[in-house]
Amino acid sequence: MSILGAIEAGGTKFVCGIGKEDGTVLERVSFPTATPEETMAQVVSFFQNKGVEAIGVGSFGPIDPVKGSPTYGRITTTPKPHWSNFDIVGHLGSHFQVPIEFDTDVNGAALGEYTWGAAKGFDSCLYITVGTGVGAGAVVGGELVHGLSHPEMGHILVRRHPEDKFEGFCPYHGDCLEGVAAGPSLSKRWGVPGADLTPDHPAWEMEAYYLAQALMNYILILSPQKIVMGGGVMKQLQLFPLIHAKLQELLNGYVQLPAISEQIADYIVPPQLGDNAGLCGALALAKKALAAG
Amino acid sequence: MSILGAIEAGGTKFVCGIGKEDGTVLERVSFPTATPEETMAQVVSFFQNKGVEAIGVGSFGPIDPVKGSPTYGRITTTPKPHWSNFDIVGHLGSHFQVPIEFDTDVNGAALGEYTWGAAKGFDSCLYITVGTGVGAGAVVGGELVHGLSHPEMGHILVRRHPEDKFEGFCPYHGDCLEGVAAGPSLSKRWGVPGADLTPDHPAWEMEAYYLAQALMNYILILSPQKIVMGGGVMKQLQLFPLIHAKLQELLNGYVQLPAISEQIADYIVPPQLGDNAGLCGALALAKKALAAG
Repeated sequence: MSILGAIEAGGTKFVCGIGKEDGTVLERVSFPTATPEETMAQVVSFFQNKGVEAIGVGSFGPIDPVKGSPTYGRITTTPKPHWSNFDIVGHLGSHFQVPIEFDTDVNGAALGEYTWGAAKGFDSCLYITVGTGVGAGAVVGGELVHGLSHPEMGHILVRRHPEDKFEGFCPYHGDCLEGVAAGPSLSKRWGVPGADLTPDHPAWEMEAYYLAQALMNYILILSPQKIVMGGGVMKQLQLFPLIHAKLQELLNGYVQLPAISEQIADYIVPPQLGDNAGLCGALALAKKALAAG
Repeated sequence: MSILGAIEAGGTKFVCGIGKEDGTVLERVSFPTATPEETMAQVVSFFQNKGVEAIGVGSFGPIDPVKGSPTYGRITTTPKPHWSNFDIVGHLGSHFQVPIEFDTDVNGAALGEYTWGAAKGFDSCLYITVGTGVGAGAVVGGELVHGLSHPEMGHILVRRHPEDKFEGFCPYHGDCLEGVAAGPSLSKRWGVPGADLTPDHPAWEMEAYYLAQALMNYILILSPQKIVMGGGVMKQLQLFPLIHAKLQELLNGYVQLPAISEQIADYIVPPQLGDNAGLCGALALAKKALAAG
């Protein structure tokens, strides 16, 4: 079985791993995200002499994942110092003459759950992370969704909860989904971090109200066969039944499919790959790179 | 070149046509939608002895377009008398032993514009119709989007315009997109049909506000390379510049792509296939059926 390289390129830390096509991770290492020169030197050094036959990169963004585009392979307009326009695929390619697949971290995670996790056996799925931001990736017909660029589903518009006084913290849209439902909105709205709120705090009903609206729109637009919700905020497992109930209420019987009307607890689920979702996502991208040659 | 059969199955009328793989329509006929027995007898009679090598059906819905599903090929829970659970693909297959492709009317129209129209040469697009209802179909990576079922993008949630007093007319969701932006909402809100409102009437600014919100969500979720807007309401061409401006305002520079920031008038456009969009869509489905064998 081939040896694959996986890079989960985050804004705070890089996680690198060696794994196999069956999703097994053999070795992993992580280091803080410094300048591209420093960080990439550590990445290259880690993979040197490991014999990887393909590399997958799931990256923080925005990125250009569109093959054939003049800026393909780059992190594009990030405010993160030094990384704007950095050509991560070009840099890796100059050190390793193997196929490389490059996508957003959430697209990687979606592909990972689709390949080895909660969405295995389906041909479409949606992966949503609710943490310091909100992001999502989707598989449709077995392929990750791309077009003009990559999706940015965390910034869709939602209706304000009638009792929500918090104005939202998205620098672009104020109270878009990310602005009112990402982790920082919980601490800004309630004065304490989400992890410090009790499971019966009204914060979770409000959070579920926003996330259920987003799911309604994602379902009506993409019709995914499985929805996986991860990230720090979704570790509050009491959110799942709240989201299930709110979503059914919002859809109001419009989508008459058993997955939603009868088996919603099996339809919208936590990640099966757990905290390895990011690295396994990059591994799934590497597997894809290997298959594409 | 092969001879193809196309059926635009509408709730009010059926349009049938004979065409070729290059999108040419050689012959077309239409008749009112009566009972399945009556209407399908006319359909079968039209195609008899025409030598069609494949048939495409773009249908009103909801339908089951998922191959392998026990109810594949049927119109499912329509309130239209006699048509609920009618097996349109099974009926056609019993008369014509040729490949049949069956999808929603809007998925057909999306495929038609992608194959021969405004989205030709791209590998993703979105087709939206705003008429008696709001519906949309999407092509991603060259394939129509399906999953659990077909998309129902017309029913996504939007924020209410602050000056809109109309409660919306969707029987399921009240003021979802279709409830506040489809043709009937214009006449219910303003007291006269949309076609009777002058191009500078405030109705159009409100309409653009709702449609731009929907486009923002579609773009953030699907990232289509081209957006085609058709249907009766979109014949009010003054809507296009209003939608372009409102969408840029809502996105607020977040998606930094020239298609949106600089060439938005070429990005969101009317259908190129015009009033033939529906029939050409069914023809594109027939072409797909032929290719799949």
